[in-house]
Amino acid sequence: MSILIRNVSLDGKNTDIAIRGNRIAEIAPGIAGSFDQVIDGSHYAALPPFYNTHCHAAMTLLRGIADDMELFEWLNDHIWPAEAKLTDEDIYWGTRLACLEMIKSGTVFFNDMYFHPAETIRAVEDAGIRAAVGMIVLDVNPDANAAFQRDNEAVWADRFKMSDRIQLAWSPHSIYTVSEANLKMVAEKAAEMKVRIHIHLSETAREVEDCRMKHRCSPVEYLDRLGLLSHMTLAAHSVHLSDPDIELLARRGVYLAYNPCSNYKLSSGRFRFRKLLDSGCKVAFGTDGCASNNNLMMFDEMKVGALGAKQEFGGPTACHAEELFQAATRTGAEAFGIDAGVIAPGRLADIMLIDLDSPMMVAAHNLISNVVYAADSSCVATLICNGKVLMQDRQVPGEKEVVREARRCSEHLRA
Amino acid sequence: MSILIRNVSLDGKNTDIAIRGNRIAEIAPGIAGSFDQVIDGSHYAALPPFYNTHCHAAMTLLRGIADDMELFEWLNDHIWPAEAKLTDEDIYWGTRLACLEMIKSGTVFFNDMYFHPAETIRAVEDAGIRAAVGMIVLDVNPDANAAFQRDNEAVWADRFKMSDRIQLAWSPHSIYTVSEANLKMVAEKAAEMKVRIHIHLSETAREVEDCRMKHRCSPVEYLDRLGLLSHMTLAAHSVHLSDPDIELLARRGVYLAYNPCSNYKLSSGRFRFRKLLDSGCKVAFGTDGCASNNNLMMFDEMKVGALGAKQEFGGPTACHAEELFQAATRTGAEAFGIDAGVIAPGRLADIMLIDLDSPMMVAAHNLISNVVYAADSSCVATLICNGKVLMQDRQVPGEKEVVREARRCSEHLRA
Repeated sequence: MSILIRNVSLDGKNTDIAIRGNRIAEIAPGIAGSFDQVIDGSHYAALPPFYNTHCHAAMTLLRGIADDMELFEWLNDHIWPAEAKLTDEDIYWGTRLACLEMIKSGTVFFNDMYFHPAETIRAVEDAGIRAAVGMIVLDVNPDANAAFQRDNEAVWADRFKMSDRIQLAWSPHSIYTVSEANLKMVAEKAAEMKVRIHIHLSETAREVEDCRMKHRCSPVEYLDRLGLLSHMTLAAHSVHLSDPDIELLARRGVYLAYNPCSNYKLSSGRFRFRKLLDSGCKVAFGTDGCASNNNLMMFDEMKVGALGAKQEFGGPTACHAEELFQAATRTGAEAFGIDAGVIAPGRLADIMLIDLDSPMMVAAHNLISNVVYAADSSCVATLICNGKVLMQDRQVPGEKEVVREARRCSEHLRA
Repeated sequence: MSILIRNVSLDGKNTDIAIRGNRIAEIAPGIAGSFDQVIDGSHYAALPPFYNTHCHAAMTLLRGIADDMELFEWLNDHIWPAEAKLTDEDIYWGTRLACLEMIKSGTVFFNDMYFHPAETIRAVEDAGIRAAVGMIVLDVNPDANAAFQRDNEAVWADRFKMSDRIQLAWSPHSIYTVSEANLKMVAEKAAEMKVRIHIHLSETAREVEDCRMKHRCSPVEYLDRLGLLSHMTLAAHSVHLSDPDIELLARRGVYLAYNPCSNYKLSSGRFRFRKLLDSGCKVAFGTDGCASNNNLMMFDEMKVGALGAKQEFGGPTACHAEELFQAATRTGAEAFGIDAGVIAPGRLADIMLIDLDSPMMVAAHNLISNVVYAADSSCVATLICNGKVLMQDRQVPGEKEVVREARRCSEHLRA
């Protein structure tokens, strides 16, 4: 498969981009040669697409099922009972719907933590995007734990059948839902298997207080003691960090997922964006699941993330559009070892084409500012992932079936 | 002109909606009769559209020209020098672009405060939406003041030539840019002419401090003393209000425009959404201008407004999706005496059709929650204003010309 994007705006200059296989072959004006597909890029800007580093994709099926409630009532009376009803088929179609929403809003990758990972993998394969799929560890009861273990062993055994768009990750849910023994097991197995670790970390004030009572240290120090913190770790939320926590995370090279929409909607705490960047921490963005956001659009994360950072810490100069865009693109790709996030020869061919004739892209004084502060999904015309066109002119093949099947699967979840 | 929307979802039931002239004639299943236009509503939900109660529309031409700066540097070095270059033609095309962006994101009305109101009116007439256009009062220098006065007299003299979609309003900029004598003049003339008043109020901590020094009272008390506060007044921002201020605003029936994106981006202060509603204040939403937002989409205001209210005041139950939707629709219409904001027989025919096959509208557990927390402009399929279709299936007639001309006009504004 080869693609030529002709006459597209890249870094403010008009050029052609040639893709051969799953990589960018050449960037230059007037590229000659034969290509399977030619895209007229003359109204578009080419940008790296988004990498969503914290998600529970199939929760699209719970979108709007319960909002505006206290955390415990929300989880106990609504989310957990609905989740208990989820079947394999629900996970498949819920994840397909999530992939569709992400593709339509410029996202080519998500890092997922949810039940029935084999179904998530099937959905990602069919949708054509990239994912890190979690092998979940969550200490519930012996039966459930054994089921998680069987699921994880099955996907691990099947890993060679998966496309190069998929990687497996260990996903211990959090320090308060996974035993010390199991956290140690994850640290050992992740190192041995050379896979990443994905965990919720310091998400609520209570998690930090309980950890200090029980372990005489912060959640960050506790995970470090157990060997879980390295550049192969993605910590989500992290809204209750002390200054020593931040220094330790920077020293270990841990990647952090900033989830502003979820953090604000659940009022769980404030992410110290400026402080974390200045301390050398690596910050990416995540959407969290649809029950607490309620969408999977990185445009919302960048804008809310910027506005929150400005309001909370130091006024309008607390962050700059370029920093937010980089967090949503390059840093997210880097966190999962994906050789993309930058449009350059030799890199993986992940490209988003932004429609410069969208009203929100005019005036054209500053493209990145427009993308971060003004754009929404309607500005994304075309999306290329791993050298394949997943959306062209806002059309995604098969989208009607995905919407219909996901809607059908969601109906039995209502209380 | 007559329109039949067939088989559309309204309040959870399938029905037909008949529009004759600029009003809703009938709502019932299976309406017979002949219509100029029939819209198949079978994949859509009909909702009231958005009413944007605080805007500086033509500032679309300054979108992204300067961001992430301290307020004074931003205004003095970037915004004011660019504004000084604005011509009549710029105002026309900048406002047309604003109208296009609003139409594409479900907004049928905006309350505007900007220079050259005759050009704004011309743009609104051509775009087909509704507006309250400000007769600006701003004490700059004798020449500029005289020019404002001539502009205002000219549009007032022409008011009988304007369509019923347009009303004029007095727009004194703020208490710190308009003299006491001119504020009193506005109060008297507005009462005599029976037009509304639109003013920035308590937008920054400094405005409140300076007012207390100079007038020994808060900005709210000062305006009340001068006779500017009534149900005919729209106060924008109002992020620095004392409890007595809030009681006074409620007693006078003043409408408030909550502008969360702008308030957060400029770090100007926090709007006390829950407290204001609980005190009986009437709260609508506004986008402010594109230099400080940077878009005109009410979806962003509702979501950021909700997240901000939750985070700042009392946790996730601080506001509910229905309250936010009502602020963005019904209360905005009411603030300007527009007999719409509710879809019912006899009301003005302002209707937004939401595409229920958008990924963000699935699962369909709660339509209003999906619209407030998950949707973006791509979910709005069709928009009807005053009985005319302004957008159908996301197409707005003439949009390419608007984008091209606005882009051209923006180019000479760069420093």
